[in-house]
Amino acid sequence: MKFDLKQLAIREGVEVAFLAEKLKAREIIIVQNSEREIRPLLIGTGLTVKVNANIGTSQAHLDVDLELEKLRVAVEAGADAVMDLSTGGPLDEIREKILTASPVAVGTVPLYQAFCEAAGRGSRNDLTADDIFGVIEKQAESGVDFVTVHCGVTRNALDILRTEGRICDIVSRGGALIAEWMTVNNQENPLYSQFDRLLEICLKYRVTLSLGDGLRPGCLADATDKAQIAELITLGELTQRAWQKNVDVMVEGPGHMPMDQIEANMTLQKRLCHNAPFYVLGPLVTDIAPGYDHITAAIGGAIAARYGADFLCYVTPAEHLCLPEVEDVKTGVIASRIAAHSADIVRNPGRARIWDDRMAKFRKDLNWEMQNKLAIDPCRFRELHQKFKGSEKDSCTMCGDLCSMKVKL
Amino acid sequence: MKFDLKQLAIREGVEVAFLAEKLKAREIIIVQNSEREIRPLLIGTGLTVKVNANIGTSQAHLDVDLELEKLRVAVEAGADAVMDLSTGGPLDEIREKILTASPVAVGTVPLYQAFCEAAGRGSRNDLTADDIFGVIEKQAESGVDFVTVHCGVTRNALDILRTEGRICDIVSRGGALIAEWMTVNNQENPLYSQFDRLLEICLKYRVTLSLGDGLRPGCLADATDKAQIAELITLGELTQRAWQKNVDVMVEGPGHMPMDQIEANMTLQKRLCHNAPFYVLGPLVTDIAPGYDHITAAIGGAIAARYGADFLCYVTPAEHLCLPEVEDVKTGVIASRIAAHSADIVRNPGRARIWDDRMAKFRKDLNWEMQNKLAIDPCRFRELHQKFKGSEKDSCTMCGDLCSMKVKL
Repeated sequence: MKFDLKQLAIREGVEVAFLAEKLKAREIIIVQNSEREIRPLLIGTGLTVKVNANIGTSQAHLDVDLELEKLRVAVEAGADAVMDLSTGGPLDEIREKILTASPVAVGTVPLYQAFCEAAGRGSRNDLTADDIFGVIEKQAESGVDFVTVHCGVTRNALDILRTEGRICDIVSRGGALIAEWMTVNNQENPLYSQFDRLLEICLKYRVTLSLGDGLRPGCLADATDKAQIAELITLGELTQRAWQKNVDVMVEGPGHMPMDQIEANMTLQKRLCHNAPFYVLGPLVTDIAPGYDHITAAIGGAIAARYGADFLCYVTPAEHLCLPEVEDVKTGVIASRIAAHSADIVRNPGRARIWDDRMAKFRKDLNWEMQNKLAIDPCRFRELHQKFKGSEKDSCTMCGDLCSMKVKL
Repeated sequence: MKFDLKQLAIREGVEVAFLAEKLKAREIIIVQNSEREIRPLLIGTGLTVKVNANIGTSQAHLDVDLELEKLRVAVEAGADAVMDLSTGGPLDEIREKILTASPVAVGTVPLYQAFCEAAGRGSRNDLTADDIFGVIEKQAESGVDFVTVHCGVTRNALDILRTEGRICDIVSRGGALIAEWMTVNNQENPLYSQFDRLLEICLKYRVTLSLGDGLRPGCLADATDKAQIAELITLGELTQRAWQKNVDVMVEGPGHMPMDQIEANMTLQKRLCHNAPFYVLGPLVTDIAPGYDHITAAIGGAIAARYGADFLCYVTPAEHLCLPEVEDVKTGVIASRIAAHSADIVRNPGRARIWDDRMAKFRKDLNWEMQNKLAIDPCRFRELHQKFKGSEKDSCTMCGDLCSMKVKL
């Protein structure tokens, strides 16, 4: 597959030579299935931080049109990718519809479909390695751009987790399901033991591997523990094996984590995984704010991205409570984009700060029209600003003619 | 005025000896006017990070009952203090009502009233030093617990600001107004030149000085510039002068600031102001998110508090757009409390993390009732969690029977 590097470099605001060099080192990846025509997703060193939005049905809610609406809203709000995490309804059909409708890269967690289908046949643990790889191949063939696979949940890692203990054990759904399967069937994780089989599929369809963090901490108390780091070491080994077979990789990261552990986690991931792009969920910097976890994740995501995370998975206000609604999807994407841009400002001020500085100038000029245009969410800007009509045309209802912007020195 | 240190130490989760020592050093302050009976506000080294909510009328919106409702909601959401920033309507009457209704410390910015009254008499710059100190004494006598005074906006600081230049000049309203007054009247700032007069009032009524950051940066481009730091140096000098006269001080800080400048700013403030408590507004880590500045401020506030800020002024979703509504006040308080608690987890994990760890355990146990009870906003928790009734009683609509918490290893 050929990409126009010059055009991609312009879009990303980097030099072509830099892009070519980092692509070769696999520190930058281009996520796009060979069968798909989308806006290629570029992630990695020196690029702007990208944002993913999770959508998809659940067993309790399987309205496909609603998920397509979430897709539309997520893309409109600026998501660079979406993941179809459907677990309810006709999964192949839902995925096909999302793939057809999405202008951005689409990822999946194939284990979900594998376990759902096994459950449909009678028992979710009555599943073979062939079933798992069959689903992965089916999804890759249908055009999925990246797959999250929990290859690092090994018997060894589970032994460590059991020995050391945790409050929340495994909170990754895919990680928990494969761990259960391994325990019930007394077998090694096929995604680990037959990793080369996975690589063949990825190579054939140009699918990017997203090495899932099945053992990511699900609460502050479990963060940066032995199980998490043991898995990360395995993911670093698998990264090199994937690279040897010419397969691009990103590595997934935590999770829930106190603020002061984030930088160390980023450093560790970059080192252990040889600068592979880092894809983080959160991290959520406190456990006590269900209903506001888009905010706890924005705090952690901004810090994570500042110290090296390249791709942020959004967290919505519905996290830990229910399947998100359309409005939650929008809020989640915007919150993640705020975190991403806040980090971009530090990672590459020359490129990222132009936006902020323009906004600041229009603020000083009380040019509301241009402020509206530049706002990360112009609709929300208009809605709030027009809610009250100020007594003064040019200032807002907060300050009126006491507006500090109007004071000339 | 006598305080029960033992009781206060228990409330704050610190040793009495530690509290007494830090009170003596003025690194911890007890904010409470001698005339008032409130829950004393303790701020400073080693304590939990506190949160302030700004309320008050504007010229465009002067519904006092609405502001009283905002007060009620702010306190219910967990604000540790409120500031009455009213600039519209009968200011004395509004302040009296807020003081009567508030169970928490109340702060003001006396310059607002001074300038509003002067404007009412004809011209806002037709104001004398006596007018300013008259308002301050009136407010102190009426029971105000702390006052923000822009003493650091000196002629020297303004010269620096003019010479170096800025995109947004002065964005502090009080700072801009006094700078205009100084320019128009060609005089030094009376809050600086007659600082001792201010101290006498504070001492008489036991009012805490909040040394305002009139020159705080209003956009990323202006952050940590010469004008801001020159003002901070002055605030450090005034801190020592206040301490010599037995007046407690907190120092106010920025503003808008890229993430990577926050730690340095906290270090600088603590050093230059001799470990006086630090009260920050934001900092907002990007300028492009009007409508979501409670999130940009939560990111900056969490980082600031981690590195030393002791008191966070909330920012609502209405910031930069309009006077906040009741719902914005609630959202702003919760977002700031999330930032404060996220930092508390790092500042004193032994005390702060108990809350998170309990939540994590109830999450693992799928005990929704206790999760609800422990949530930072139980109403919001209930609202979201009950929106969809899950197919499974014990898990939510996101995962259903694929819930990772149910997997036994």
